[in-house]
Parts: sequence; structure tokens; C-alpha cells
Amino acid sequence: MSESTAPAATALPVLSSSRPLRVAILGFGTVGRSVARILVESAPAGLELTHIFNRNVARKRVDWIPGSVQWTEDTDVIFAAGPESPDVIVELAGGLEPAGEWVRKALGAGKSVVTANKKLIAYHGLELESLAAANGLHLLYGAAVAGGIPVIPGLEHGLAGDRVERVEGILNGTCNFILSKMEAGAEYASVLAEAQGLGYAEADPTEDVGGFDARAKLAILIRLALRAQVHPEDIQACPITEVGAIDFSYARDLNCTIRQIARAERVDGHLAATVRPMLVPLASPLAWSRGTENMVITTGHYGGDVVFSGHGAGGNPTAVAVVSDLVGLAQGSCRIALPSTPAKVSTELEVPHYIRFLVSDRPGIVAGIAGALAHEHINLNAILQKPGFPLDRLPFVVTVEPCRTSALKRALQEIARMPALLERPLDLQMLEK
Amino acid sequence: MSESTAPAATALPVLSSSRPLRVAILGFGTVGRSVARILVESAPAGLELTHIFNRNVARKRVDWIPGSVQWTEDTDVIFAAGPESPDVIVELAGGLEPAGEWVRKALGAGKSVVTANKKLIAYHGLELESLAAANGLHLLYGAAVAGGIPVIPGLEHGLAGDRVERVEGILNGTCNFILSKMEAGAEYASVLAEAQGLGYAEADPTEDVGGFDARAKLAILIRLALRAQVHPEDIQACPITEVGAIDFSYARDLNCTIRQIARAERVDGHLAATVRPMLVPLASPLAWSRGTENMVITTGHYGGDVVFSGHGAGGNPTAVAVVSDLVGLAQGSCRIALPSTPAKVSTELEVPHYIRFLVSDRPGIVAGIAGALAHEHINLNAILQKPGFPLDRLPFVVTVEPCRTSALKRALQEIARMPALLERPLDLQMLEK
Repeated sequence: MSESTAPAATALPVLSSSRPLRVAILGFGTVGRSVARILVESAPAGLELTHIFNRNVARKRVDWIPGSVQWTEDTDVIFAAGPESPDVIVELAGGLEPAGEWVRKALGAGKSVVTANKKLIAYHGLELESLAAANGLHLLYGAAVAGGIPVIPGLEHGLAGDRVERVEGILNGTCNFILSKMEAGAEYASVLAEAQGLGYAEADPTEDVGGFDARAKLAILIRLALRAQVHPEDIQACPITEVGAIDFSYARDLNCTIRQIARAERVDGHLAATVRPMLVPLASPLAWSRGTENMVITTGHYGGDVVFSGHGAGGNPTAVAVVSDLVGLAQGSCRIALPSTPAKVSTELEVPHYIRFLVSDRPGIVAGIAGALAHEHINLNAILQKPGFPLDRLPFVVTVEPCRTSALKRALQEIARMPALLERPLDLQMLEK
Repeated sequence: MSESTAPAATALPVLSSSRPLRVAILGFGTVGRSVARILVESAPAGLELTHIFNRNVARKRVDWIPGSVQWTEDTDVIFAAGPESPDVIVELAGGLEPAGEWVRKALGAGKSVVTANKKLIAYHGLELESLAAANGLHLLYGAAVAGGIPVIPGLEHGLAGDRVERVEGILNGTCNFILSKMEAGAEYASVLAEAQGLGYAEADPTEDVGGFDARAKLAILIRLALRAQVHPEDIQACPITEVGAIDFSYARDLNCTIRQIARAERVDGHLAATVRPMLVPLASPLAWSRGTENMVITTGHYGGDVVFSGHGAGGNPTAVAVVSDLVGLAQGSCRIALPSTPAKVSTELEVPHYIRFLVSDRPGIVAGIAGALAHEHINLNAILQKPGFPLDRLPFVVTVEPCRTSALKRALQEIARMPALLERPLDLQMLEK
């Protein structure tokens, strides 16, 4: 990761105003088709779809694309110089490679790039922005976080004047679909299967349910909102897979629900960031989002909370963000360069926690747990135990007042030694508003 | 109102990169002080506060402004040419004049303008944008609608690629404060007094409670979101003053609350727009906003609903939008020109209605009302009548299924002739989601 700050924006090289920007789409999947559809149907001024690249492109052809558009499986056609070549590359292949190589090639060949590739931008965004700036070109990625919700444009153009101190949100539609269905009573396995059937979840859902997709997006938001450069893998991601129906039931008793929350904030000079399932108060906007919706809440030193929500993924919403970036390029607008500096990520936060234990009931369990917490100066808040469970597999919940992550970790390590515990306790942070 | 489309954005004239943009604040009230505070505290790159203009400026002086800043009550100092003069004018005087004259003078003198003046932009935005473009300058007004919430940047930079078909929102914090307090049980007069005490409402609250403030903002959103040029006074504004505690009680029975909603949409080729108190389902994001919060929901043909919410007014949130525009200017970014065309505003919508009657009870009232509705082919949905009211001043509520505004108006005119009616019925549109 580069230690330089974000490159200053430079003016877009002046293109002949007598002809529109020639646009090439790389990757003709769901989003690529939607981008093409909008370019063809809405025909935004100053833009012309000229090339569509895909491997084995013949199987991708559709009849509603104008005959003037060149279909190709040869990247040389895309990166060539000359008046018949594209001016702008829309990279929709996703993943680190070959997308990264293509973006570098495009920028090296004098073509600006619009991409929806969160992973590439989270891992290599600074380097690629520097390369674009060095070549007097632009790299736009408004679609990389929360798809159709203008969070990135909002941060760059509407909140550049604030000092954002916290960003939190629901950045993965698959997890939100699963957890909001579980809130309504469904079981994890059946909802996951439903999500897979609907195309919301991959056959291997690890990237989503493990929190890895959300943390790449969070790394981008951390740079634009908190102005800190972090490596995505330095952000701790905890899976939602351990959350069960019983946790939603206890959460409801606490006037909460459970969502996968990506959260980063500056606390006492360090940067804390994490992606994990959390208890969210029902009164919080974060509890309102249902299905595959995304939401981002920024907290500014001057402007307070701003909430953005809508459809974070899907072909059309993502394509809206891509085409909006293209319209900006065609009009000679540019990104606002938000300077950022390298930062170390900590997990040390002081928040309340929900801890669910599964025990074989015997005298002294609560005393043992309370003692371990007290030893770390952690105040126990409530003990909740629902009736109707067998004594030899008894779940119960302890909530604790705000405490440091490291102190609670030590207490839970101590508690884990108690023979009555049948499994590792499930520890969920609780959002306080 | 000009019939031309919005002027195309032009590149900002290149300022010497060796020195920051010199910024003059015109109007050192609440927002002006907040803008100065952020410029001094955060010192965004490329910006320098150099002038503060106010009438009787001596009484405005504060000690935390750097000594290098020139305080003046002479506009000639502000509009002068030369290296010691401002490059950018921040117009925060508000109102049509003299703010309009100042903005024209600034643009005539080669200075770009940032303003938070919704009225000026709603009434003269097109003309002023043309003037700015003709002079190779910029006119930015991200603060004019919903203050600290980046709705305008979101529309310009994030939703330019969509075709927005509807925009609705809560655009007046004073009305939202009053109605959300009434929802919690307060009476109109006492909440208005509280709002006035807190500085949320003027001594003469007509501009806010009459819907005139919100309709100016709606006119701006109509141009940027629906790409239609309308005169603010063509938008029908109905006051919130006729809404009473009993309406909140009936609304609750219908799983709704009441908010002042500004709403515009394209229906069958015409543009319908209005500002009025409406019944809003409790499940709608519009019901979530409390206190002085603002909210805007756009519905895009491709991207679906996007919700923006936060603090729409107040010194600091508004100043964030102003400073963000300044940062954009300093970095050479520019607004995306969203082309618009003149449109006629209609009030003809097909929505369900809530109608509250106050009658002196006698036989035949419901039959009379039902008959008048049936004559206009309007389907009665429910009749609600709470117990405990005297028969000679009996309030009750009728809800009707979606019907055309004009048909309902005719039916209500017929009903108004019934001798049992003690006052004109209160007719509220109901939002359907």
C-alpha cells in the first residue's frame, strides 16, 4: 500500500467536443448488460457505446445492441490507440486479476476507467488513482460501494467539507437478506438456500457471510470518509453463521434485531474497524433495512448523521452508478481528491456486548461468569434466560455495559475454561443508538 | 423563466495553482459563522477565507477569525477586481434581493458563487446558471435543498445515469418538528411556540407552515431529479395548520402518521407536484424522521428508491454543504449539467384520500357523502368514528380508494352544501407505501 496521500485531481484531457466519448464495456454479465441497456435506451449526451468485450463473446450477443457496437474477445482491440478505439473502459470483470491488469493497461493507453470493482479498489485503489493522475486520466468507482446508492459521490461532493468521524452500514445485501428473513422467523440454512436460488448468494457463500465482501467496501469508505488508508485484510471480519434463531428472540427482548454491520470510527486517535453481526436497536435506521437493501450512515463532526439507503447491488442499480460516472467524465467533471494517510486498524472499542452461552446447568455458572467479568472490571447489565430448554443444553444470555474489547476477550477466555460450557460463547457487539 | 435547457458545464477557469481560492462570505449570520468556523478550523486545501461582508459589520466581529480576514460593509470591496479581491463569493444573505443582485454582480465580475439560497435558485436558478456558464464561471448550491444532506450532489454525480420518475420528501424541518411533536401528543399552538422559542420557527411562521419554503426546494429538486423547469408558485402548497390532534389519532388507526410532504412525479406525461400534509404509512421511511430532520426519496426507473436523510438545516449542516462546494471549486471539479425542459405543473393525481368531517349529527349524513362520492365514481374505503364526541360537533373520517384529484374536488364541493357540515372537510392525500 502506498504511503502517499491521494493524488490531486487533474483536469480531464480535453476530448474533441465534436464527438461523444467512446465507451467499451469489459465484462458483459448482469451489470454489463444493464450498463449497455441504459446507454442504448437513455442515450446520455456525450457518450457512445462502441465496444463490448467478453471471453467467448459469441454466446453473449444480444439483438438490442446497435450494429455499430463492436463485439470482441480480443483485449488488443480495446486497448488500441486511434480514433476507432474506446476513450473510456468500463471494467466489470470483477476480482483482482485480470481486472487489475486491464485497468493498468487502459490507464497506460490513455483511457480513463470506470469500474464497479470493490476488491480491486479496496486493495489497489491508491496505486491505480496515482497511475490515472500521472497520466492525466480518471479512475471512477462510484459503483464499488453500495451500488445504486450515491454514497461515494455524496462523500466526495457533499461531505468533503465535513470531518467524518464514524461510518457504519449494511454493505452486503446477501447477509441482510438472510438476517432480515431470520428476524422474521426463518432458519439460516433454509434462507441461505433461498438466497442461492434467487441468485443473491453464491454456491460458496463465504465471501458474503464471512464478511469479506463488506470489509473490502468498508476499506474504501474508510479512505473516503475517515481519510485513512487501511489494508482490507487488517479489518477483522466475523461471520454471521453462528447467529441463530434464539439470538433474534433474545435480541427482540432487548428491543433490538441483528444485522451484519460494517463499522469504522476514529477513537482516541486510533482507527477501529470491524465487520460482524451486531445487535442493532429497533429504533436505529440500520434496523429498517430489509431484504437486499444497503445502508450507510456517516457521522460528521459538523453535519451530524447522514443516512443513505437503497438498492446496493443488482444489475440496474449498479449500472446507474457506472453510467453516472460516465456522464461525469463526458462533462469534464472530476472526482474530489480527499487526502488520506496510512492508518493502523485496531479492534479496541468500548461498546456494550451481548454474550450467549450454552451450558449444562449446574450451580455456580452465573457466579463464575460474573466473577470473570468483575475481574476485568466489566459491569454485568442483564441476564436473560428463556424457559423451555433442557437443563443439559441450556442457552442464556448476558449483556454487559460498555467495556474494552481486549478486557472482554480475556474474561471470555477465562470463562471458556469453565467445564459447564458446551461451546464457545457467541459474543456480539451492541450498537448503542 | 428561461425556456432553454440547463447550460452545459464548462471547465473552471484555471486559477494560479500557487495560491488558494480567496473566499468572501456575504452574510455573517448562523450559517456564515459556521462556514467561517469550518474554513478556519479545518483549513481545507486550496481555500482561504479573505473577506466577510455584513451590514453594520462592526457588531458581527468575533475574535476567532484570523486577522488577515477583511471585515467590510462595502460591497465594492467584494466585487472589486485584482489579486487582493475574492475569487469566490459565498452568498448567505437569503431571499431574492439584494442576494440576486449580488450574485449577478459577482458573476459579472468574474467570481464564481456558492449559495445556500433556495429561493433565489428556485426562482432564478436557470438564468443565473446561464450567466455563470456564459462567463466561464460556476454557480454551486448544494446547500439550497436539505442542507447537510448531499441530495443535490447525489442527484448530479450519483443518479445522473438514472431516469428519476418521482421525488418526495420532508424538506422543511420546522413542519417536521411540529408534526412529529403532535404525533407524540402535543397541540399545534404549543409546539409552534416551542419551535419559535428554540429558533426553529420564525415569529411569522407562514413561510414554513404554509409550505412555501418546501415548495421552493421542491422546484429545485424537480429540475435536478425530474429534469423539468417549473415556477415555484405553480406548485400548490397547503398549510399544515388545519391538522389537529384528532387526525393523528385517526391516522394511527390507519397505521399512519402525518407529515408535510413535498412530492413530484411524472404521471402519464404530465408533471404532478404538491406540498401538503399527508398521511404516511408508519412503515415508510418518511414516518421515521423526527424533529427537524429532512429526508428525500428518489425513485429511479433503473435504480429504484434511494433514501437520503439527516439534518437539513442549522448552521453547521448547511455550512458542510457550502464548504463541500468550495472544496469542489478549489479542485476544479464542476457540476454535472442535467438538461431540463419547461413543464406545466398539474395537481391531478390518483391517490387515496383521508377526509375528516365535522358535523352536527343527523340521519342521512353518511348516505349523502357516499352518494356524492359515488356520483364521481369514487370508492369509499372506510368510515372511522371515535367515541366520546358530542353529537352536535361530531368528527368522523372517511377514506377513499385512489381517485383523481379533480373528481374528489367536485364531490367535496357537493358535500360542502350539506347543512349538517359545520366546517370545510379536511382532505389529506395518503401515501401508499
